[in-house]
Amino acid sequence: MTEIKLTGRGVCIGGFTAGGAKDGKYGVAIIKNNSVCRCAALFTRNSLKAAPVLVSRENVKNGIQAIVANSGNANACTPNGLADAKKMCRIAAGALSVDEKNIAVASTGIIGRLLDMGKVEALIGEVSGGLSAGKSPDAARAIMTTDTVKKEISVEYKGIEVGAIAKGVGMVCPGMATVLCFVTTNANLSDAELYESLKSAADSSLNMLIVDGDMSTNDCLFLLSEGTKKCSALDFRHALDYVLVEITKMLARDGEGATKLIEADVIGGETPEIARTCARAIVTSPLVKTAIYGENPNWGRIAAAVGSVADVDFENLEIRLKSENGEATTLKKGQGGDLKQAEAVLRGKEILIIVNMNSGNGKARAFGCDLTPGYVKINAEYN
Amino acid sequence: MTEIKLTGRGVCIGGFTAGGAKDGKYGVAIIKNNSVCRCAALFTRNSLKAAPVLVSRENVKNGIQAIVANSGNANACTPNGLADAKKMCRIAAGALSVDEKNIAVASTGIIGRLLDMGKVEALIGEVSGGLSAGKSPDAARAIMTTDTVKKEISVEYKGIEVGAIAKGVGMVCPGMATVLCFVTTNANLSDAELYESLKSAADSSLNMLIVDGDMSTNDCLFLLSEGTKKCSALDFRHALDYVLVEITKMLARDGEGATKLIEADVIGGETPEIARTCARAIVTSPLVKTAIYGENPNWGRIAAAVGSVADVDFENLEIRLKSENGEATTLKKGQGGDLKQAEAVLRGKEILIIVNMNSGNGKARAFGCDLTPGYVKINAEYN
Repeated sequence: MTEIKLTGRGVCIGGFTAGGAKDGKYGVAIIKNNSVCRCAALFTRNSLKAAPVLVSRENVKNGIQAIVANSGNANACTPNGLADAKKMCRIAAGALSVDEKNIAVASTGIIGRLLDMGKVEALIGEVSGGLSAGKSPDAARAIMTTDTVKKEISVEYKGIEVGAIAKGVGMVCPGMATVLCFVTTNANLSDAELYESLKSAADSSLNMLIVDGDMSTNDCLFLLSEGTKKCSALDFRHALDYVLVEITKMLARDGEGATKLIEADVIGGETPEIARTCARAIVTSPLVKTAIYGENPNWGRIAAAVGSVADVDFENLEIRLKSENGEATTLKKGQGGDLKQAEAVLRGKEILIIVNMNSGNGKARAFGCDLTPGYVKINAEYN
Repeated sequence: MTEIKLTGRGVCIGGFTAGGAKDGKYGVAIIKNNSVCRCAALFTRNSLKAAPVLVSRENVKNGIQAIVANSGNANACTPNGLADAKKMCRIAAGALSVDEKNIAVASTGIIGRLLDMGKVEALIGEVSGGLSAGKSPDAARAIMTTDTVKKEISVEYKGIEVGAIAKGVGMVCPGMATVLCFVTTNANLSDAELYESLKSAADSSLNMLIVDGDMSTNDCLFLLSEGTKKCSALDFRHALDYVLVEITKMLARDGEGATKLIEADVIGGETPEIARTCARAIVTSPLVKTAIYGENPNWGRIAAAVGSVADVDFENLEIRLKSENGEATTLKKGQGGDLKQAEAVLRGKEILIIVNMNSGNGKARAFGCDLTPGYVKINAEYN
């Protein structure tokens, strides 16, 4: 069987170049191709959409040649947001010699404050002058806000290349593609195949990621394809699914204040949708998240989270915990398990919660992190 | 206009007596009348209902003469929960000379651990021997878990008396009556009038209270009426609404780790249901809650919370903040307001967030508290 190989190129696969720079709280990242790319995109479902979301939603219809993104300010809920978002496109278009209508723009940061266009313009000038081929760490770093590490991955599978960068790590809820995530590929597929692949991959990855359950005004996920590699849509999906799950885990691990990654696998659901709902409920629950932080085997909170969103037969419910430290059954056939063993499992860093509802074949996995004093501190002070 | 008067009797109005005692983590409270009372009740909507909920749901149909409640253990998700809940009724029935089928039982504490029936039996014996008339502080204290203060109130209005005790203060979500809350009255009303009054009062109070969004397996709200006072249902509702709103505020103020009470008033909603959804979204949002904790006027998070659950026209959205320190408009006609003034308002202890959607007459109020490192600490360690 052909394996997926990591390639270390970030979004700079094929003819894509990228760059980024920071100036205090502000940062600008640019990703560019030498020609206009097919683009599939998913946006926040928040009804208060930031100006860059509104502008990009129109522009992606024309195909995209470059993405320009800033951190430090969301350009959301301000009186001149639309004008500023369009100006960002115009400035980037000029600097990159690209048509303005082929620019996707994205912003992330505080809501309701005026964008400092002077800083953004200077950063676009700086970044556009020095785009690199072959790797994208500066772009990945430039979009970070409360992220503590950059999120970047690229893979090769049967000649198909897929690369991505993303930023989290608060106001993260699976209302759609979460946060900012930019994906590039060489796969030569139709607009419909790209969109369907992106939607399907996001539904099992970014759309199952919860840091705090707050839905951003700015989330967007762009997939740009330069179309230089003929391939099957199925093979492309395989590579794209892998990339988005890995990006999702990176985002979860680095959730604001997080000390542990949480994955919730729900199996045996009456339907896949019920399994999805339960998996999300587990990683959303502040009580589950604080218990994991405290390495406290309070599995009753997992049961309560599932019971709050689905009909559960207690006698059929099974709960297991797994980590790099081993595995523990905490509930089976109505009987609690060994709490000492569960505590040992929870001392691991990557916690998998497996819930078997034993009432069908529905299954789903959700991603999240623990809730810590660090999360509170970051968000009490964020501006 | 007749005023509502505070009477300082707790649940010990009319012929009700009460008592309570603690033994380490365990506590038992008993409320008793000299005859069988009409009883209206609301229970958790969690599908994993604790054993005492299942037992009480049956017994309330017979009328209730006494409530027995324990803290320290939820008697939920254990193999012998039902037997233990029934045993609690039987023990209380014997000790109080009351028919077993007229006992309501309730439990609160950790889920999934066996109830220590020895402790419960000893405490029932101790408490039943010394029930007091006229006041109920021991009962209010005996049901506390992570509560830092007891919740107790009683009022008189046109000769109608209503008294209540309650406990919170984590795993609080408005899936129904929240937490444990026991209400007594002398109002002589039909079963249907009592139930409708209770449902309506809970919908504007306990059902709009969110501490963390986790729904308990054990919540129950009992209303016992001894029927000694003929009155209009409307007058009774007036008194009951007052009592439940006050209890709700006590619970919110004492939410786990809380330093501030948050009330969210949404007005101008297209429908009352939309206003309710938005008000709940605001007090649920971890980002709004941490901002309030940090006295950080990040009103964009309030806008984002509303936008995540309802269609919002940004130009029409108004956001004001009020507290004992004054008032600040933070958003109006698309323009942000004075952040220094907003910061001053947020240094208050009781924060009112007023959101006008300017798109109809729907209005609703939700209750909550800030999210603090204290919440995380309490729940990382709770057992």
